[in-house]
Amino acid sequence: MKISVVKNILEANDRIAEQNRSLFDEHSLTVMNLMSSPGAGKTSLLERTIQALKEDISVGVIEGDIQSSQDAERIARMEIPVVQINTGGACHLDGNMIRDTFDEFDLAALDLLVVENVGNLVCPAEFKVGEDFKAMILSVTEGDDKPAKYPLMFHESSVLLINKIDLLPYVDCTVERIREEALKINPHMTIFEISCKTGDGLEAWYEWLKQQVRSRKKA
Amino acid sequence: MKISVVKNILEANDRIAEQNRSLFDEHSLTVMNLMSSPGAGKTSLLERTIQALKEDISVGVIEGDIQSSQDAERIARMEIPVVQINTGGACHLDGNMIRDTFDEFDLAALDLLVVENVGNLVCPAEFKVGEDFKAMILSVTEGDDKPAKYPLMFHESSVLLINKIDLLPYVDCTVERIREEALKINPHMTIFEISCKTGDGLEAWYEWLKQQVRSRKKA
Repeated sequence: MKISVVKNILEANDRIAEQNRSLFDEHSLTVMNLMSSPGAGKTSLLERTIQALKEDISVGVIEGDIQSSQDAERIARMEIPVVQINTGGACHLDGNMIRDTFDEFDLAALDLLVVENVGNLVCPAEFKVGEDFKAMILSVTEGDDKPAKYPLMFHESSVLLINKIDLLPYVDCTVERIREEALKINPHMTIFEISCKTGDGLEAWYEWLKQQVRSRKKA
Repeated sequence: MKISVVKNILEANDRIAEQNRSLFDEHSLTVMNLMSSPGAGKTSLLERTIQALKEDISVGVIEGDIQSSQDAERIARMEIPVVQINTGGACHLDGNMIRDTFDEFDLAALDLLVVENVGNLVCPAEFKVGEDFKAMILSVTEGDDKPAKYPLMFHESSVLLINKIDLLPYVDCTVERIREEALKINPHMTIFEISCKTGDGLEAWYEWLKQQVRSRKKA
């Protein structure tokens, strides 16, 4: 009984996510669903990425948080369109919440829409929002045992950004072990090692992301 | 409709948690529900705490993870009773999962039972397991904006352990801001600043925890 309720919720969400997906396709819009634990660096990555890309690419952001609008305020300083969703307790974004923001954007004018999900390494991975791909951040401060403990997130994400590598000298974490364990779960994962503080490794990420946007514009 | 389903699940869980609570009371057992984001240091805190307390206090641990038994193996090395729960996808522990472990423990022989919840700063705060109190860990690497963004966890926890203070020179995080924001949400919170790596601040935590156990033994 409980299982069938959950299954119905997921199926209903999948249908709405597909409708969102169709609308995004009409506009050749690339949509990234960005996920991580609390404080792994989602908003910091976006600040850096938008700064680097906004001359060439038109970016919009949906910020998901249980409460507060701090992240949307940080993104709004970059002078790009941003909408804050407050889930009021819910631990993830879903297709319906994303659909409710469409009136706030000029979708035809955007190249890239980033959905910054609620900070949570579990639930967001279960709910599609209509994205082209999911990207996840893991901070080295969280430890190298995380792929084995949170496998769904690693399984669903096309991209893994290993962040805060500037802190590696001070924590017990081996990037090589994160890579190995993540690729065991998802052999097709694209992995970047970055520091949003120092900027290390970000150029490769920007190039990869621009390529994603260009390939969808042409298609 | 969706809301009533969720409400029923929470009410059913509360009933089971109360039954667990009654059983714990019969044995004058102190039960702590320990919560945090992934990688904030729950298992490291337990390793330190058990090592410091196990001569005086009989401790048992329930380890909650979606998958893997790495944490239970770490705790088992301390030669105390430990049971691993694998939720198989669920993002939190509930009263029923805890009840299912009772055959594995000699509850009458324990003074303190620690429930290490799934790493998640959202959902575990909603589900009682029969605990005397909830304790949460926040790592300084997660940033000082977390109380405002995850208020329920801070509201429900009697104790906040601010961990990894050895990393403060390398991250943009102010402990004073964490304290202020946390106390706005929950003015009765007891707060410790600790490093499970260096041991800083842990003596005060051990004393506080021993006091909790002693007061329940006497009652």
